[in-house]
Amino acid sequence: MNNNYQPRPEDRFTFGLWTVGNTGNDPFGDDVRESKSPADLVYLLADVGAYGVNFHDNDLIPFGATAAEGEEIKKAFKKALADTGLAVPMVTTNLFYNPIFRDGAFTSNNAAVRKFTLQKVMKAIDLGAEMGAKVFVFWGGREGVEVEASKNPITAIQRNREAMNFLCEYVKDQGYDLKFALEAKPNEPRGDIYFATTGHMLAFIETLDHPEMVGVNPEFAHESMAGLSFVHGVAQALDVGKLFHIDLNDQAFGRYDQDFRFGAVNLKTAFFLVKLLEDNGYKGSRHFDAHAYRTEDYEGVKDFARGCMRTYLILKEKAVRFNADAEIQGLLAELGKDDPALAAFGGKYTPEKMKALKDYSFDTQALAKVSYGYEKLDQLTNEILLGVR
Amino acid sequence: MNNNYQPRPEDRFTFGLWTVGNTGNDPFGDDVRESKSPADLVYLLADVGAYGVNFHDNDLIPFGATAAEGEEIKKAFKKALADTGLAVPMVTTNLFYNPIFRDGAFTSNNAAVRKFTLQKVMKAIDLGAEMGAKVFVFWGGREGVEVEASKNPITAIQRNREAMNFLCEYVKDQGYDLKFALEAKPNEPRGDIYFATTGHMLAFIETLDHPEMVGVNPEFAHESMAGLSFVHGVAQALDVGKLFHIDLNDQAFGRYDQDFRFGAVNLKTAFFLVKLLEDNGYKGSRHFDAHAYRTEDYEGVKDFARGCMRTYLILKEKAVRFNADAEIQGLLAELGKDDPALAAFGGKYTPEKMKALKDYSFDTQALAKVSYGYEKLDQLTNEILLGVR
Amino acid sequence: MNNNYQPRPEDRFTFGLWTVGNTGNDPFGDDVRESKSPADLVYLLADVGAYGVNFHDNDLIPFGATAAEGEEIKKAFKKALADTGLAVPMVTTNLFYNPIFRDGAFTSNNAAVRKFTLQKVMKAIDLGAEMGAKVFVFWGGREGVEVEASKNPITAIQRNREAMNFLCEYVKDQGYDLKFALEAKPNEPRGDIYFATTGHMLAFIETLDHPEMVGVNPEFAHESMAGLSFVHGVAQALDVGKLFHIDLNDQAFGRYDQDFRFGAVNLKTAFFLVKLLEDNGYKGSRHFDAHAYRTEDYEGVKDFARGCMRTYLILKEKAVRFNADAEIQGLLAELGKDDPALAAFGGKYTPEKMKALKDYSFDTQALAKVSYGYEKLDQLTNEILLGVR
Amino acid sequence: MNNNYQPRPEDRFTFGLWTVGNTGNDPFGDDVRESKSPADLVYLLADVGAYGVNFHDNDLIPFGATAAEGEEIKKAFKKALADTGLAVPMVTTNLFYNPIFRDGAFTSNNAAVRKFTLQKVMKAIDLGAEMGAKVFVFWGGREGVEVEASKNPITAIQRNREAMNFLCEYVKDQGYDLKFALEAKPNEPRGDIYFATTGHMLAFIETLDHPEMVGVNPEFAHESMAGLSFVHGVAQALDVGKLFHIDLNDQAFGRYDQDFRFGAVNLKTAFFLVKLLEDNGYKGSRHFDAHAYRTEDYEGVKDFARGCMRTYLILKEKAVRFNADAEIQGLLAELGKDDPALAAFGGKYTPEKMKALKDYSFDTQALAKVSYGYEKLDQLTNEILLGVR
Repeated sequence: MNNNYQPRPEDRFTFGLWTVGNTGNDPFGDDVRESKSPADLVYLLADVGAYGVNFHDNDLIPFGATAAEGEEIKKAFKKALADTGLAVPMVTTNLFYNPIFRDGAFTSNNAAVRKFTLQKVMKAIDLGAEMGAKVFVFWGGREGVEVEASKNPITAIQRNREAMNFLCEYVKDQGYDLKFALEAKPNEPRGDIYFATTGHMLAFIETLDHPEMVGVNPEFAHESMAGLSFVHGVAQALDVGKLFHIDLNDQAFGRYDQDFRFGAVNLKTAFFLVKLLEDNGYKGSRHFDAHAYRTEDYEGVKDFARGCMRTYLILKEKAVRFNADAEIQGLLAELGKDDPALAAFGGKYTPEKMKALKDYSFDTQALAKVSYGYEKLDQLTNEILLGVR
Repeated sequence: MNNNYQPRPEDRFTFGLWTVGNTGNDPFGDDVRESKSPADLVYLLADVGAYGVNFHDNDLIPFGATAAEGEEIKKAFKKALADTGLAVPMVTTNLFYNPIFRDGAFTSNNAAVRKFTLQKVMKAIDLGAEMGAKVFVFWGGREGVEVEASKNPITAIQRNREAMNFLCEYVKDQGYDLKFALEAKPNEPRGDIYFATTGHMLAFIETLDHPEMVGVNPEFAHESMAGLSFVHGVAQALDVGKLFHIDLNDQAFGRYDQDFRFGAVNLKTAFFLVKLLEDNGYKGSRHFDAHAYRTEDYEGVKDFARGCMRTYLILKEKAVRFNADAEIQGLLAELGKDDPALAAFGGKYTPEKMKALKDYSFDTQALAKVSYGYEKLDQLTNEILLGVR
Repeated sequence: MNNNYQPRPEDRFTFGLWTVGNTGNDPFGDDVRESKSPADLVYLLADVGAYGVNFHDNDLIPFGATAAEGEEIKKAFKKALADTGLAVPMVTTNLFYNPIFRDGAFTSNNAAVRKFTLQKVMKAIDLGAEMGAKVFVFWGGREGVEVEASKNPITAIQRNREAMNFLCEYVKDQGYDLKFALEAKPNEPRGDIYFATTGHMLAFIETLDHPEMVGVNPEFAHESMAGLSFVHGVAQALDVGKLFHIDLNDQAFGRYDQDFRFGAVNLKTAFFLVKLLEDNGYKGSRHFDAHAYRTEDYEGVKDFARGCMRTYLILKEKAVRFNADAEIQGLLAELGKDDPALAAFGGKYTPEKMKALKDYSFDTQALAKVSYGYEKLDQLTNEILLGVR
Repeated sequence: MNNNYQPRPEDRFTFGLWTVGNTGNDPFGDDVRESKSPADLVYLLADVGAYGVNFHDNDLIPFGATAAEGEEIKKAFKKALADTGLAVPMVTTNLFYNPIFRDGAFTSNNAAVRKFTLQKVMKAIDLGAEMGAKVFVFWGGREGVEVEASKNPITAIQRNREAMNFLCEYVKDQGYDLKFALEAKPNEPRGDIYFATTGHMLAFIETLDHPEMVGVNPEFAHESMAGLSFVHGVAQALDVGKLFHIDLNDQAFGRYDQDFRFGAVNLKTAFFLVKLLEDNGYKGSRHFDAHAYRTEDYEGVKDFARGCMRTYLILKEKAVRFNADAEIQGLLAELGKDDPALAAFGGKYTPEKMKALKDYSFDTQALAKVSYGYEKLDQLTNEILLGVR
């Protein structure tokens, strides 16, 4: 047990350059923090105890930089990695900031933009491979519409698929040891973004030429914006072995994309997520895709980063307690117990089993009276969370 | 063209017994309309011009009815079908009303409930086959939780899969010509329902033993409750040939399940849905899963049913106009045109194509300046909808 | 301090008959618990330690009961009150369940319904006065529309005002010691309900003939359905001395009306609410307007009721700790400190003060750099909640 | 009638400099349009047919500009106004963009920021008066919290009130002919903004020293973000004579602040708003607080501006048709008719009237059977909107 809640490398806590490097501008306000270099952000992350750092291509090397400028930046960045021991587990491409992508990247109505996107992603993949990343994330922030008339949504799906198939081939062709992780979002900055949820992404993956190379990167805030259970979405990804990466933060339902510190809004949903990941032996990064409030300076940014990790560790300890609580486990065991009278109907379908089941006389009066004790179970859970149990 | 907006059989407009038969009770209020028999509802639907009628097992035959009572009811119902010529294209099971299902049906923590559910569904499938239904819908209204601690969400997925696999075998074993259509809903009546959206359902289907037998039944209100684009979800189902059925109604985002008359809330989203279905040659039922306001008597119920169909037909005509509008089509053609300079990069991946694309010099300054004219396109669409164009 | 979290009379915890008496039906499901008499519910509430019991007229005396039947019920109810010592601090009218109110009560388009409503409320007021209630709540669950065309919204406001003025006169005329508390809700069961939030109600009250008799009864779930900060709404009511009553429960944003156990969804928002009430010396009832999950029997109902009160008391203790935490209070003191250089500009407007302020030279560069340390403050708050501090 | 839907001065269509001047950056993307000078934007607005132009102080004169620079800009701006005949009906202050306001302006925890805010507003008021504005809007975009612990919400209300009282005195002292209009928003850019809705603002106004000087400026998108009926909020403002200004745009419920072209999302809600304003003789500006999609260049910006006005005029014509439709008006007249038997109970309260009403025997069976025909009414409304009636 790690009762002092200090991050350790085996916790695999990572942050994006864009998270601790966020300068605080928003649609209604200017930057509030000066910009820091990628290398400086690596030292900051090392200072707070992170395991790794992730980035969009243009977080590291600005759009339009010359090759020489790029080499200079990479040199300083690699030195910072070497000095601090931080890893780069994941890299991604920025396909949303430049006006080129204003109508999408893979799904833009402009044919040249679609091709330029492939080029940009290939170069970002090269960069990721160079940095040792094993996961390459795709977040198609502009792949959507405000004006439904402007794009056939089936064409948009096809364009996306064609691009993803091309890029899978590229990775195989280059011999990179790299998997793709697709990140869904329902809206913002587009009115509606294609593949609105992790569920839509999981379905899309099955239509690709190389589904085995592609998984998901669910983001807490993105599913929560739509008021969906993040835990259930992540569970579905785990069920099919597709949880390749995860973005942790917090967010109120039905709001703009808030990207708050992990646990800032709802400690209970954060708890069940941590419990799900830990109970199922998730081995990937715990990546915090969030940023400090705009009220903060860089001391506040460090408080933010430390808070994300510390809350995760506190909740991980709570999960251990939950799993060890005799009263709770007794209630769960009682709920989960099988009915020996019905054991014969279990397992694979056979016509005999089916007939026996079809003819079985259930005591429907009794079944209608079964109650479940969930008020007690939930109260016990709350009391573990509140530390009074 | 059907400019008088009268429903015809080829429009395949269907209603559930539970829709026109809804008696108007809600969580805060009592019934406002007397109950009508299934046969009477068939005559009502014939009167307004519907093509078919769908039902849950217990809409037709009450839970716990004797075999003799069931036969009596079926006789009267079949007579009404014969008298009116109405079809029964779809049947489903009620797995939510009886207290037995209070913690779910396939995913209940009670093992006997899970088995009873299989029995009930098999019998409902038999009933559907007897009535000639070709689609069997599953809406798991109670398959969820309020108390996340009460169920392992991965176990819930597995229980669902096991049940679905069993029932596919049952249909094959019986030789029924029947497909399954899964209907998602994010919440209500449970706090969170598993497989929250059509996307999650499409992904789940791919994990079944017989995915080819299983498609989706997206419902307008259910995706809209989560503030998602229904059109995009349906498009994804069409893209993979999985749109086996559809539930039409209307609903404000982020609200309780409203099940309003088709077009009651947002005519524009209804328009794009109709356009998607018609442009893509969807052949299934246009099923209205909605009910009359609680302010109405049975004259109002008929107004409701007529309104659903009439609005669909008006919007279908608008889609024809949109597709024929020279200015709109000119804008779309301009948007969709390919760039001949880039034609060489199209099609399947080859290393040569990849290298050429990677080395290609894009004029990023020019690409950043491309604009798309979507304000005009959307205004023209609005004016078609408003009938001033 | 009450560290064992046992409810005491001075905590003023109350429940409605309709809460612990809820039989579990919902729009998709039947009753799951047998109905209990009002008297039996009083004994149940006494058993769990409640201070008082509230009711709608028809929770106690069914709609249409004869006078003799009413007297019989009241006798048994009063005996239960006497046996247990429970108080009746609040009474209200059911203006939503009977089909009569399907288009509203005060705002119905039917003139006779509007008058019948006044009669029903007067009788309910008499009943409330007889039972010793000091607060009379109005929740106009049907005062709204699905069809905006059906009612002029200004007319609806006027009808509401006219009714409220009439009923204030009635209370004065009868010499009752009774205040009114208006409860807002944005929607459900109507598509849109008039006076959607506590803010709208506070504004409406100022337009009445006797605003001093009328305050608000904010409900946690109702403001939360619209994704609003319940704490801020309650604070505004406290600021003007209008918090006459409060309905506690829990609810996810943007969902159907869930009425979950207090603290079931978000312990942090519940904490800030408890802190607001306690810090500001709120003297009224802590009324739990919630019900047990449908998975529960009456043991679960008791768990539910105990859980509401226990969570309140745990959070009250957390508020004491927050207020006593030296580090937190140090941060807050630092934030709140005044700037002596600007003291001259404080207080009431005078032309001299104004001129001095207008000419004052602010160091805007320095002001733009002020940071606030809220990441740390929020993390400390979370750690108090989690019991690790 | 103005069937060609061309804007005329008497339509009082206005735009903010920040609307047509919006350069298209958002939280995930860079500017897509070059910046235009205030004067150039005036010519653009004249070109599309607007009546007036509104601005924030810093839309016209950048933060920190010297007095000389300010004079230069004003000169060019005034020339453009003179050249085009455009009016400046409304002015406001930018209290959100500069980092100074990161924790609020009137409600900042920093005492100097609160005072600086007063100074900035006084100067902006002077500027507004100089330009002939009659309405001064307050939108407190930063007046809120992410961290509830950071501010006592009652203190925040008091700080707001103190500031508003001071500024009312300032206007009176200067003898300006200027009214204040307060604009609510529930969240974004802050986690929660104080006075979340127009209702909360109307209530707050009644607590000011000079409520007669202060009204509201409801914004379509802001109420819609919370899923509230904008029409009902505006109706409440009209009912108390407090609709001093209005911000028109469009927005999906439960989403980020979209500020889309008027009518872009939901033509039906836009219709009922136009009808409400026109039926009630609203005399103020029809101000469009929206901006063009990020896909557009300045031609698209003009399409956007023309579309806002044109849609308003089309809907205004639809309202005339609705009011003239014999079938619709017949249904409404039937609904609204009084019951002569109950006429005696109308008007002011008297003890006699009360007694008579209390003793009156209503036919509750009959009242429970009254139905309202709203399905038909809504369908007729839709058909007027769709232009098929």
